[in-house]
Amino acid sequence: MKDSIRVFAPATVANVGCAFDVLGFALHEPGDELILKPNFENTVRVISIEGDGGVLSKDPQFNTASVALNAMLTSMGSRQGFDIYLRKKMPLGSGLGSSAASAVAAIFAANEMLEKPLSPSELLPFAMEGERLACGSAHADNVAPSLLGGFVLIPSYQPLIIRTLPVPEGLSAVVVHPEIEVKTRDARDVLRQKISLQSASSQWGRVGGLVASLFTSDFELLAASLDDQIVEPARAVLIPGFYRVKQAALENGALGCSISGSGPSVFALCGPGSDPALVANAMKKAFQEIQIPATAYTSEINRKGPVVLESGD
Amino acid sequence: MKDSIRVFAPATVANVGCAFDVLGFALHEPGDELILKPNFENTVRVISIEGDGGVLSKDPQFNTASVALNAMLTSMGSRQGFDIYLRKKMPLGSGLGSSAASAVAAIFAANEMLEKPLSPSELLPFAMEGERLACGSAHADNVAPSLLGGFVLIPSYQPLIIRTLPVPEGLSAVVVHPEIEVKTRDARDVLRQKISLQSASSQWGRVGGLVASLFTSDFELLAASLDDQIVEPARAVLIPGFYRVKQAALENGALGCSISGSGPSVFALCGPGSDPALVANAMKKAFQEIQIPATAYTSEINRKGPVVLESGD
Repeated sequence: MKDSIRVFAPATVANVGCAFDVLGFALHEPGDELILKPNFENTVRVISIEGDGGVLSKDPQFNTASVALNAMLTSMGSRQGFDIYLRKKMPLGSGLGSSAASAVAAIFAANEMLEKPLSPSELLPFAMEGERLACGSAHADNVAPSLLGGFVLIPSYQPLIIRTLPVPEGLSAVVVHPEIEVKTRDARDVLRQKISLQSASSQWGRVGGLVASLFTSDFELLAASLDDQIVEPARAVLIPGFYRVKQAALENGALGCSISGSGPSVFALCGPGSDPALVANAMKKAFQEIQIPATAYTSEINRKGPVVLESGD
Repeated sequence: MKDSIRVFAPATVANVGCAFDVLGFALHEPGDELILKPNFENTVRVISIEGDGGVLSKDPQFNTASVALNAMLTSMGSRQGFDIYLRKKMPLGSGLGSSAASAVAAIFAANEMLEKPLSPSELLPFAMEGERLACGSAHADNVAPSLLGGFVLIPSYQPLIIRTLPVPEGLSAVVVHPEIEVKTRDARDVLRQKISLQSASSQWGRVGGLVASLFTSDFELLAASLDDQIVEPARAVLIPGFYRVKQAALENGALGCSISGSGPSVFALCGPGSDPALVANAMKKAFQEIQIPATAYTSEINRKGPVVLESGD
């Protein structure tokens, strides 16, 4: 076995407008770096965490990376021990799948170290165990795109069904993270638990349109379909300036703009005819105009998922 | 101008399981035949209707064929008159888009007669005017597949967006029409107007899966995605024996089975590995076992839409 491996697992945008809870995609940046080294202690340890501002636990039972890795090793009947060195290179609690990236990085690294006994799809349930720790339920809409790359649709949770969707050539993403806190619980609490059948069926028409647009590189359809009339209006109240930011994105050529995950990050998708840097600057400026500092990322859609950055002997 | 034309417009299955109000597909049979002849009266007349049991109105203001045709001629600024001879070759009030087939047949025939000034998509709004008469609202989920053929998705009504989806090779449909009456109003009234966000998001995951399955000929995904947990359970109570019929379809190899339109017809989709005739017989028998006479149709998905059967000089 190699004596160490350093990997990157990408941040992800879940929900994707109309497709609340069923679609996500991966970014090229930001994301997490993780170094994994085998140990002789028959146990998974979290040795160090950088870039988290001291927030994350190093207790293996309370860190998504170690929880996911332990789930994987237990399932394989392996007693191999590993040491985790985590470098958060993305904001926590940002709605960009921070906990998912850590979990994916750990199990991807271990699978590489063990000479790939499992396929990416087979790794997914273990990454979802990390999400159970982080969110209280085993969501797949961040871990699946982080692990598989591209756009990932989750047609069903019971049983779990996952399908990757094509990425149209020339599609890119902008993500802007404002320095405000949105608690995941608040983001859940603002949602109305009952919605009208009419608004639901309009929404599933748009979800169908969004999926079709990815298969056909139909940017006009993509732009018309992204619109979320159910979750976004409820959650927008938690993000000061959201509608100004969205307007800035659309006025500067974005196909659509909505809340990433449960926020506060805001994402936009751009077609071949628009300039993601221009969109990113306009969105960032809209936050700054109301005195909210913000960080912007522009990225093509990440088709690969996690990658090995460095591999020891 | 030719002195007459005889056309066929197909019956359609709307709703298609999970995709309530946003998806439909066309059948090869049953459907409507319509003969159109120009007249010199500057008006649209319904001269005869066969096969309707005397139910349909010949008043041009109250027949979907003439209403659609008048909407088309008015929009074109044409004062050409036409005589309509309608042959219903499908059951009325069956949930198979009977009113849509008549409307589509009329405007398709007139467009052929006028040497195709309009594309099929341009004809759609006029067919929808026929639906407004028949259903009280301008639905597109029967007229669009009858007019365009294949599977047709309606991602949005405001503005109206229509997209045809691929038909997987080897996919066929079974439709069984039981001789019972389901009033469209009752079919609407049994629907709960509020649904849970969770059931809605599960449903839009399946709609996404269904659309993806058509692009990828993924029959396993299609089978998993067809399931409708919102509308079908409510409407099933209006169709005695529905669950027995559905069970018969699934046990005999159908990918899925649900209510066609607002019922009472029941449709099943079959993949390359199953025998549609076997499925059709089993479904029909399940109705007959509870003393409900039923007619079964098996059909490949109709990719063409309306066709010219005979064209005069």
